[in-house]
Amino acid sequence: MTFSDRLSAAAAVVEAELARLLGEDVRPGETSRPPRLMAAMRHAVLGGGKRLRPFLLIETARLLGRDGPAIVNAACALELVHCYSLVHDDLPSMDDDDLRRGRPTVHKAFDEATAILAGDALLTLAFEVAAMPAPDADPAAQLEVVRGLSRAAGLGGMVGGQSLDLAAEGRYGDAPPDEAGIRRLQAMKTGALLAFSVEAGAILGRAGSDVRRDLVTYGRALGAAFQIADDVLDREADAAALGKRTGKDADKGKATLVDALGLAEARAMRDAAAAEAIAALAAFGPEADVLRAAARFTAERRS
Amino acid sequence: MTFSDRLSAAAAVVEAELARLLGEDVRPGETSRPPRLMAAMRHAVLGGGKRLRPFLLIETARLLGRDGPAIVNAACALELVHCYSLVHDDLPSMDDDDLRRGRPTVHKAFDEATAILAGDALLTLAFEVAAMPAPDADPAAQLEVVRGLSRAAGLGGMVGGQSLDLAAEGRYGDAPPDEAGIRRLQAMKTGALLAFSVEAGAILGRAGSDVRRDLVTYGRALGAAFQIADDVLDREADAAALGKRTGKDADKGKATLVDALGLAEARAMRDAAAAEAIAALAAFGPEADVLRAAARFTAERRS
Repeated sequence: MTFSDRLSAAAAVVEAELARLLGEDVRPGETSRPPRLMAAMRHAVLGGGKRLRPFLLIETARLLGRDGPAIVNAACALELVHCYSLVHDDLPSMDDDDLRRGRPTVHKAFDEATAILAGDALLTLAFEVAAMPAPDADPAAQLEVVRGLSRAAGLGGMVGGQSLDLAAEGRYGDAPPDEAGIRRLQAMKTGALLAFSVEAGAILGRAGSDVRRDLVTYGRALGAAFQIADDVLDREADAAALGKRTGKDADKGKATLVDALGLAEARAMRDAAAAEAIAALAAFGPEADVLRAAARFTAERRS
Repeated sequence: MTFSDRLSAAAAVVEAELARLLGEDVRPGETSRPPRLMAAMRHAVLGGGKRLRPFLLIETARLLGRDGPAIVNAACALELVHCYSLVHDDLPSMDDDDLRRGRPTVHKAFDEATAILAGDALLTLAFEVAAMPAPDADPAAQLEVVRGLSRAAGLGGMVGGQSLDLAAEGRYGDAPPDEAGIRRLQAMKTGALLAFSVEAGAILGRAGSDVRRDLVTYGRALGAAFQIADDVLDREADAAALGKRTGKDADKGKATLVDALGLAEARAMRDAAAAEAIAALAAFGPEADVLRAAARFTAERRS
């Protein structure tokens, strides 16, 4: 299978499981699933997307000889966290975006309160899914994933990065961040969850400490490549290909590495991060080629 | 110790641990803790409160012979979820409240985006805390708490209840709910997390199935008493004692049982729920007196 086939195959598995999780059946411990809230959650999650985080977890676990329901559950948990973050980031008081993947954002398709609640419910569901029993699940490893997911997603990771990103616009009177500041906020906002996607695969794949260290290095570098590629894409891509307005980061006074470094140097930094990710996999043979391809894809993607 | 002493003692233990969790120290897996976000989280959590949910968990576990760090961690997780829900419920697009416990709400003291992010980060942190290692922790029981907390707090519980509560105002064109509808939305919005506080104590206290069933019955009835008491209080209490505007539910067209039943019948239903909670503890001796007192306190509280 080509890289693109592997990415699509992981997306299909995860999409089917996400659709099941967001179905109408009320489960034990639930009273009812309010239809408007459910529709907003489905709009947020089942609208396509590359499912890159699930893919990274699934392929990392597979590299270590593991697959099965516990892996798919953890992959879905990552995607639920990612989707919730998009819903909340798009809100009027945050980035105020009307379009996401070419469709109306949740607060546009529904309303602001429903978007906030749908995000809350997706984040909450993520942790249930990460903690689900499965024949191949190891409780200690699951707990480690729950903790790691929380730290990657929370105040010291993704949520904290969004807070710093809003501050970088100047809305709280802070000076614009320098290059190091931009890199830190991006590492938190986007990088932490991408890096944890790989680390979760290592945890569930019971990697030894050396292997885990290499995979964490890979994940962090891939996360950095992804962020810089986003900044470059925002400047380059045309609106149709990306399915959202472009140049919008600059319009809003968002801090980007392209502003700090210029387009050519940002591209070079992106490619260096992808190369660093690939170099971290030196201890692996051809079985890690799909992860190497993922690093290249992350840097070279056009959307 | 009197009931009031026990409640204060549990609150003090939980308050100290929450202050530590929301301290400035960056922990492994975190990049940095943005000061504005941290300040908003501390404002939301460390502003007092009865800490009723932690108390119910701690006292239920103690009834079953368990205490220790794992119990305190789970208690803190419940309180973090409760505090996040208050921050988001108070938002302009939701209940639009300026005051909470006599202090400015988080979006008033900071700003709307920071309030949304602080709530997100508190919810995220709750699951990390519930999954923390501790000498007295049993991984399988912790995972069960993570799953149960998620279901009580999520789309089929607390978040779903808030969604139904907004719909009951008529903002989406729905007809006003009847008494059963009001009871269901309140059971989800408020009752589910209160009931799970008791159930989590039973899980971590390794209750057998009969004992757990009794405790779940107790928790549900206590949750119902709490909700109805809230409706009654909203109608009765003066603003000074409650620290927030009163009669506000009625002002907003919120569905309340007092509207559906009248004040006298709502009070009778509240007291019947408290009596049901106490009756569910019939298999216990005086060691359960503190939980019996909690049921009476829930119905009779003045704030």
